[in-house]
Amino acid sequence: MAVKPDHENINFQTKPALELSNLYGLTPKVVAAVIASIAEHNKERLISLIVPLHPADQADMIERLNSAQLKRFTLMMRDNLDPTVLTYLPDSVLEDVVSNYGVNELAQALPELDSDDAVDILEDLEDDEVADILAALPVGERLIVEEALSYPEHCAGRLMQREVVVCPSHWTVGQSIDHLRSQSEDQLPDEFYVIIIIDPARRVLGQVRLGKLVSSNRPVRLSEIMETAPHQIPVTMDKEEVGLLFQRYGLVSVSVVDAQEKLVGMITVDDIVDVIQEEAGEDLMALGGVSDSSLRSSLVTTVQSRFLWLLVNLATAVIASLVIGIFDATIERLVALAVLMPIVASMGGNAGTQTVTVAVRALAMRQLADAQVVNRFILREAMVGLVNGLIFAFVAGLVSLIWFQKIDIALVMALAMIANMLAAALSGAGIPIILSKLKIDPAVASSVFITTVTDVIGFLTFLGLASLYLV
Amino acid sequence: MAVKPDHENINFQTKPALELSNLYGLTPKVVAAVIASIAEHNKERLISLIVPLHPADQADMIERLNSAQLKRFTLMMRDNLDPTVLTYLPDSVLEDVVSNYGVNELAQALPELDSDDAVDILEDLEDDEVADILAALPVGERLIVEEALSYPEHCAGRLMQREVVVCPSHWTVGQSIDHLRSQSEDQLPDEFYVIIIIDPARRVLGQVRLGKLVSSNRPVRLSEIMETAPHQIPVTMDKEEVGLLFQRYGLVSVSVVDAQEKLVGMITVDDIVDVIQEEAGEDLMALGGVSDSSLRSSLVTTVQSRFLWLLVNLATAVIASLVIGIFDATIERLVALAVLMPIVASMGGNAGTQTVTVAVRALAMRQLADAQVVNRFILREAMVGLVNGLIFAFVAGLVSLIWFQKIDIALVMALAMIANMLAAALSGAGIPIILSKLKIDPAVASSVFITTVTDVIGFLTFLGLASLYLV
Repeated sequence: MAVKPDHENINFQTKPALELSNLYGLTPKVVAAVIASIAEHNKERLISLIVPLHPADQADMIERLNSAQLKRFTLMMRDNLDPTVLTYLPDSVLEDVVSNYGVNELAQALPELDSDDAVDILEDLEDDEVADILAALPVGERLIVEEALSYPEHCAGRLMQREVVVCPSHWTVGQSIDHLRSQSEDQLPDEFYVIIIIDPARRVLGQVRLGKLVSSNRPVRLSEIMETAPHQIPVTMDKEEVGLLFQRYGLVSVSVVDAQEKLVGMITVDDIVDVIQEEAGEDLMALGGVSDSSLRSSLVTTVQSRFLWLLVNLATAVIASLVIGIFDATIERLVALAVLMPIVASMGGNAGTQTVTVAVRALAMRQLADAQVVNRFILREAMVGLVNGLIFAFVAGLVSLIWFQKIDIALVMALAMIANMLAAALSGAGIPIILSKLKIDPAVASSVFITTVTDVIGFLTFLGLASLYLV
Repeated sequence: MAVKPDHENINFQTKPALELSNLYGLTPKVVAAVIASIAEHNKERLISLIVPLHPADQADMIERLNSAQLKRFTLMMRDNLDPTVLTYLPDSVLEDVVSNYGVNELAQALPELDSDDAVDILEDLEDDEVADILAALPVGERLIVEEALSYPEHCAGRLMQREVVVCPSHWTVGQSIDHLRSQSEDQLPDEFYVIIIIDPARRVLGQVRLGKLVSSNRPVRLSEIMETAPHQIPVTMDKEEVGLLFQRYGLVSVSVVDAQEKLVGMITVDDIVDVIQEEAGEDLMALGGVSDSSLRSSLVTTVQSRFLWLLVNLATAVIASLVIGIFDATIERLVALAVLMPIVASMGGNAGTQTVTVAVRALAMRQLADAQVVNRFILREAMVGLVNGLIFAFVAGLVSLIWFQKIDIALVMALAMIANMLAAALSGAGIPIILSKLKIDPAVASSVFITTVTDVIGFLTFLGLASLYLV
């Protein structure tokens, strides 16, 4: 693609990157110029604007187009679109681009990519599209991609790239470098940081970092400089576990092996960055009661994705109301109770959410694996709940006393606060741990349970104590 | 350290890593053996158990010790403890280890580490300890560390390592490799994936990936194979921005430059994994109202870290109660209102939290930078709020009708639900965006505002409409 950039004065590549805005290729100026060139049907200008951009910036640009613009864009860009761009697109936009692009063209472009990137694109598409694209792929590529897609989603087999550099352990540094030099660019992975040392049965013996390889003398044997630390993982391992392993040991590259312990691929740290980001984001969204945070989702999709959570919440709110309903006669006689009761429930709900958040995060980081640690955590939370319960019993009691000038109301408030804060702590710590033992994602389900518990206990203790002692 | 591992049969390094448990060096068996050897004062056995472990596992083991065990452990391990272990310890434990270890010994150990690791340890310590350690460091090392600590926290200068491999662009591949081979191990960074190409004024021209270097022929010039994409960042750039840049462009290594655009260090992707994890975790915890999720924090620290949030929440709960108080006469006449009113507030609170979660995540990912995107987001959320408001107005109205057999109550419930869901959507989308414009962390402050809004609007519309039309 011999294309000259049209925006030398706005592109980061041509001036020092000391301004934050210069680090990103897609400036408002470029965006405006791209949209103008689409409107003007100026194909040459569009290509000269898009091609010099980093694929991530090209993807960002595509995301900003409306569907009419996108249609024209794909028509005008056609053969000049780098297939790598597709790997940076969110699912919803990818679907649109692929349907504009056409199955055959995509099948031609896919073999240019590393196998992990090709799989990354295909797994986001509909089944019938995938079947069409697979049918149009060259046989060799098709087999590789089909094999990758045969692994369950969210496992190492989907994440890994099949392109690896392997050497036997008896080779010298010189031999290995000569071997690498003899390979064409297509034969080498786009990204690799290690060469993997295997035995004749393709079992992994260790790996040599490129930094070590390139700074060692030619006669040195690979066996002398290879590392044998935990650098191989099973192909069925969960993505999240792979991410945690990379984090814990600060890994750069791991070998992926099949059930016979033969090398089938490798995963590098740059693939893991996305996994970690996604996993952390998923927990955050699950705790907030949203399953899809994409800003591009349609109104219908968004309403659907929030509906279930709100419906469950309505059910728990009705349960809480039923509890209040038991005491309607009490409230009728002393309306101050209706005024104060949300305070008890709300404080319990917030204290419970705090504990749930800590528990969910600790579970995600695998810090609650040990029975001893779990016990210590529950005990500490119970103590925190008790101490905060006592403090806020005093404060809320005082507020009630000043407000309604009745010591009895203040005492009921204080007792209910202690009970609810303690219940919040125990259920906030216990529920996520129990859910995770039952293999239910604690980030998704904990909040519902915890607010139900704190609402019910809050209203029950406050109104119950009031009905016994006040009216 | 010529020490033979004592646990050949339980260490991952000696058998294939196909079981998940084998991927982690610290098995329950090892933990038990370590604790036993501490109890028995068996120094040799302790060393033979600990030294073969990965530093991350050694740190995990240290975290599991109580303070008496830790005291003995540091006494018994002394010179055999790899200083890298310290970089894996959480702040609270690091403090304990350092006070047991002693300032002088630490000062002796620090120069063994890459500069980013040394800084990582020192920035977690108290000021007086840092001063003592700095005073005990050799002059050369002290200057480097002092300079690093002079950069503001959370900036690239703290994250980077000063050890880099640089070459001029006119060098050939052969010359560069010979240069690398001539360096002693101490002179090379522990981890590097690129060589940085500089001009005589130490300005960055580009970088060459090691994979490219090692697969190119010796006579090829570096200028022919170097990349010039956005690989340099200012030393003052915020860590979070650095992380986002790595993610967006799938970077492996960036050069860090000072205000004069001279190379001062580099940041590699393995350092970024921790940054991304921390940032994502911070948002999750902030939304949950906790500032410190460490499982090891003491009771006092934990109570303190949760107290402020609960106090703020008490204030907002009291505000909501004040609103209810306005309508106490209405409630006295129709107690069903007290039973139903938490439903409106709770549904608003949950819908608002959903929107806040999406907004906070999008802000963290820098997806809400563009005014057009912000407008589209607010509009979509308002529509979602309206649609969900209509749906739940119907459902909650129906529940009220069945429960209290009064069409008026059902109508008031329905109207209040629509109003509150719409208010939840608008404030849930607007508040985080406004806070972030005001440079206040939206993850920390949004929840308070949103629940206040939805409680007040919920009670106000429901009880207000009831007082107008029902009683």
